[in-house]
Amino acid sequence: MRNSRSDLALEASALAGGADVPGVRMEQLRLGEMTETVVEIVDERGAGALGKPCGRYVTLESSQLHMPEPALEEIAVDRLAQTLAGMLPELGAVLVIGLGNRRITADSLGPRVVDGVLVTRHMRENTPASLKGRLRAVSAVAPGVLGVTGMETAEVVRGIVEHTRPEAVIAVDALAARETARICTTMQIADTGIQPGSGVGNHRLGLNEESLGVPVIAVGVPMVVYAATIARDALELLMEDLAPDGEEHAGALDALVDRVVARRLGDLVVTPREVDERVTRMADLLALGINRALQPRLDKDEIPALMH
Amino acid sequence: MRNSRSDLALEASALAGGADVPGVRMEQLRLGEMTETVVEIVDERGAGALGKPCGRYVTLESSQLHMPEPALEEIAVDRLAQTLAGMLPELGAVLVIGLGNRRITADSLGPRVVDGVLVTRHMRENTPASLKGRLRAVSAVAPGVLGVTGMETAEVVRGIVEHTRPEAVIAVDALAARETARICTTMQIADTGIQPGSGVGNHRLGLNEESLGVPVIAVGVPMVVYAATIARDALELLMEDLAPDGEEHAGALDALVDRVVARRLGDLVVTPREVDERVTRMADLLALGINRALQPRLDKDEIPALMH
Amino acid sequence: MRNSRSDLALEASALAGGADVPGVRMEQLRLGEMTETVVEIVDERGAGALGKPCGRYVTLESSQLHMPEPALEEIAVDRLAQTLAGMLPELGAVLVIGLGNRRITADSLGPRVVDGVLVTRHMRENTPASLKGRLRAVSAVAPGVLGVTGMETAEVVRGIVEHTRPEAVIAVDALAARETARICTTMQIADTGIQPGSGVGNHRLGLNEESLGVPVIAVGVPMVVYAATIARDALELLMEDLAPDGEEHAGALDALVDRVVARRLGDLVVTPREVDERVTRMADLLALGINRALQPRLDKDEIPALMH
Amino acid sequence: MRNSRSDLALEASALAGGADVPGVRMEQLRLGEMTETVVEIVDERGAGALGKPCGRYVTLESSQLHMPEPALEEIAVDRLAQTLAGMLPELGAVLVIGLGNRRITADSLGPRVVDGVLVTRHMRENTPASLKGRLRAVSAVAPGVLGVTGMETAEVVRGIVEHTRPEAVIAVDALAARETARICTTMQIADTGIQPGSGVGNHRLGLNEESLGVPVIAVGVPMVVYAATIARDALELLMEDLAPDGEEHAGALDALVDRVVARRLGDLVVTPREVDERVTRMADLLALGINRALQPRLDKDEIPALMH
Repeated sequence: MRNSRSDLALEASALAGGADVPGVRMEQLRLGEMTETVVEIVDERGAGALGKPCGRYVTLESSQLHMPEPALEEIAVDRLAQTLAGMLPELGAVLVIGLGNRRITADSLGPRVVDGVLVTRHMRENTPASLKGRLRAVSAVAPGVLGVTGMETAEVVRGIVEHTRPEAVIAVDALAARETARICTTMQIADTGIQPGSGVGNHRLGLNEESLGVPVIAVGVPMVVYAATIARDALELLMEDLAPDGEEHAGALDALVDRVVARRLGDLVVTPREVDERVTRMADLLALGINRALQPRLDKDEIPALMH
Repeated sequence: MRNSRSDLALEASALAGGADVPGVRMEQLRLGEMTETVVEIVDERGAGALGKPCGRYVTLESSQLHMPEPALEEIAVDRLAQTLAGMLPELGAVLVIGLGNRRITADSLGPRVVDGVLVTRHMRENTPASLKGRLRAVSAVAPGVLGVTGMETAEVVRGIVEHTRPEAVIAVDALAARETARICTTMQIADTGIQPGSGVGNHRLGLNEESLGVPVIAVGVPMVVYAATIARDALELLMEDLAPDGEEHAGALDALVDRVVARRLGDLVVTPREVDERVTRMADLLALGINRALQPRLDKDEIPALMH
Repeated sequence: MRNSRSDLALEASALAGGADVPGVRMEQLRLGEMTETVVEIVDERGAGALGKPCGRYVTLESSQLHMPEPALEEIAVDRLAQTLAGMLPELGAVLVIGLGNRRITADSLGPRVVDGVLVTRHMRENTPASLKGRLRAVSAVAPGVLGVTGMETAEVVRGIVEHTRPEAVIAVDALAARETARICTTMQIADTGIQPGSGVGNHRLGLNEESLGVPVIAVGVPMVVYAATIARDALELLMEDLAPDGEEHAGALDALVDRVVARRLGDLVVTPREVDERVTRMADLLALGINRALQPRLDKDEIPALMH
Repeated sequence: MRNSRSDLALEASALAGGADVPGVRMEQLRLGEMTETVVEIVDERGAGALGKPCGRYVTLESSQLHMPEPALEEIAVDRLAQTLAGMLPELGAVLVIGLGNRRITADSLGPRVVDGVLVTRHMRENTPASLKGRLRAVSAVAPGVLGVTGMETAEVVRGIVEHTRPEAVIAVDALAARETARICTTMQIADTGIQPGSGVGNHRLGLNEESLGVPVIAVGVPMVVYAATIARDALELLMEDLAPDGEEHAGALDALVDRVVARRLGDLVVTPREVDERVTRMADLLALGINRALQPRLDKDEIPALMH
């Protein structure tokens, strides 16, 4: 349901009842100031309960993630790189896809990450001698969105995959969360690809192993919360306050939300005023992590030196 | 109060009780698909009730204003130009100030309008013969915001006014509204200048005749609603529903909002996902209206041809 | 040869000897303040002499084209639309490709034009009733450049064409000219597609009917002159001055240019300081012309109203 | 003379005869892969010969400066910081001015540097305890250019200086050089302020201690070479080649250049195609150096963490 829409498996799992949902395994790890949570949807019971396909969803969070703090940044980038490396095939070319609309700030995460990815696939013949044998072939593209190109992202990506034949795809996208506190403080990495209807830009078709023929790793960061979610949550809190044993009000609440809230709020999103700055920062972090995962044989200093 | 913050006199007036507030006069006019409302705060009673200084506040609204519709656009630009012309001194140089932070989309209206203003003050000696005697001297600047420049906007503007001596100032700013439906559908023109604490960027000091020594016309468009306002409104609707005669709940509601909502929502704003596109469009409309008001002796076609 | 590189058939033809080159037909037409020149390369003799494939190259020029002048603009847009319409198949979907690198101003014409193209291919089911039967299916994409994506533009485009099956492609690109006066004052429309090695970004592979399987119309505007061309031209002028009958110096000049000039100037380009502004303006003109050519059944006012 | 225009004292000195010009002292220092040159114009003879006011001009150069190389970057930033620190008063507030037009890439260096300067003047009351006593008060503004604001930059800056009373000003500007090899590979720091007619944007009035009442340190990087300079240099090389003892041709050359070259090339500039990327990189370096010079009591890691 749109009113409490979340692209995070972590939130979906909490809503569905947390650790005890059948078909779902959860594990949590503390890494300095970061928390890593792995949600594993192991069968159809879990998939149904969470409204997401079977697979592994890793969440890295820190309430300070949007702040420039070198130590935290290092942990985040490193952990992102390890998680990605664990999901990718060990060898072979990788295509990074930046989903979303570059001209809508809250939806521009994917294209901005692509700007920071070290692209190497075209270097083959003229790779400098010092780099020979140390570069994984990487290509990257931001294919645009349906309303701007007139073409389904999935159509465009399928054409590119067939012609350039990567062994795996990393698809980066801006997400919608349920909790405002998660905006720009959480990264989700999933081996399931992108589902139809997910993301700030609401993809109509999926991008996953089934549709592309190669593994698709999805990487995302929540950039918005739907305003209707906020209103709904405020109402829920109030209901609890007024009638603490109010399980029976749930139906009434839904009706109320539909009547009172959804109509007025439509597609409005809640976002920090500083979203422009934060999306820039999160895009930098994701690009750093992706580069480190894809080029383990390069030093940290070599990567910026090779950027266009 | 922040929770129901509005920079629109129209909304403040509605909250305060509409047409019957002592010290406030209201008038409404239908212009095709647009509505023009004039709120005039005539004395201190009105100023107190609405939380705004005495003066004339003209609001131009249309729910279609953010859509490209040439006929509506023509009415809006024309009416904006007439309203401005009525508030400006008939002769003399005018300085247009674009308030706000260019790098925060929702706060970038002012700087973007400045980009579209026809600047002529420097042409004096080399004005083409065909334009001699037909140009009003106009300068324009986006002075930045305190957090970015380290200087109060009011300090910067005062320095510029003293050195360049305009006869009047037009100050353009992004506003906060109470109703999401007003985002990018309403323009407010006021002869009161800009008040401390107003605007999306929250000006700490005012920009008005008192501080600058020349008349200051404020022009603004709502770009955001504070998320706390949304939540509060949802709660109010619910309270009415549950307890229709609930005047007595007002205090409880305030406490609840403070406890439940404000803490979680802080400075979060609600904005349309397409805010980037809409702010571009509204900035174009405002610049067109300002140019027409300031250069009545130029044809419509001459203005774009003179733009840098 | 790079030193006198031009992507304009008009300049190549002038260099090769003008109207009398065998296998080349030229025609010139005056349209108010614009000049239209058609260069037709009819056989291999012409193709060899001009270094361009057989086909029809239409050039629209006016020294004022980069200035905002509504009357001239109307002629340019109209003539561009007619020329395109004459080269396109009468029916069927069209894909507009914006070549070049959005982040290099002088190479960003193509991506910027794509931003202004009215995209309709995705509207099918939900076309407003008033537009039914009046829209040609148009899609548009800026595929990026090899150095940024790691993929040949031709690979990416071929994949997209195979999956979305347009009947024709319009490929827009920034060009290099020989004469600085042509920067942003000339448009070239050719039914030959894009050749390897052409454009500011220097495409390594072509985009033409042979490679894509559908007709490809190329649209371009000169944005740069190579600095080596300037130096060479200055040297030539000097040689003529010093030795007016100096045909025999040509070889010496070439050697000199290679030794003296090319080494120091490399890939440096000459461009107007105002290139940012001019590329914006030319992109607007091209997008208007393309929209008019592709949507002849829409009124001029309807097109902006349908833009995203 | 415009044809061989340079804003670099180093180039002016070389043109005037190098180390032996009376009234000019030169010193050169090797710093790893960088070269530091100090040109000191000590009296009016030197000022006349170089066409620049008396003062100290420090140039830091490396042909690799535009490339991302951490070691070189560290040297450049460090040396820039030391040079600035040596020219600034030890205590007191500093205002950083970014000259030039943000919307013309080659002229946008100044505004972009301002974006990266750590601004602290407004923090006074709410400086975090851990920073108390460690922050120098810094403000920063990009005042725009005459053609865009209608106001002389000098008018605007004077107003701001009078109202905010800094102890010194750092003025950052894009420069014109004579040698294309210097574009984005050289930084000049001068204690003379900015002269009328200098910079890519050609300032009409100066910004110096005389006009502002406080010391003005100018920081600049060459972003363009005038096309006429290129052509003239090519001609000179040719003349030398054809007539090695050709001192007597100098007059003829000047006439030729005027007749042949200047008319065709006007204000055209030569710039690398990658100017957008390089200006971004140089702006980052300058901002890092300025921040380090102004905040010597902050750790390197603290500065990014304090940036807006």
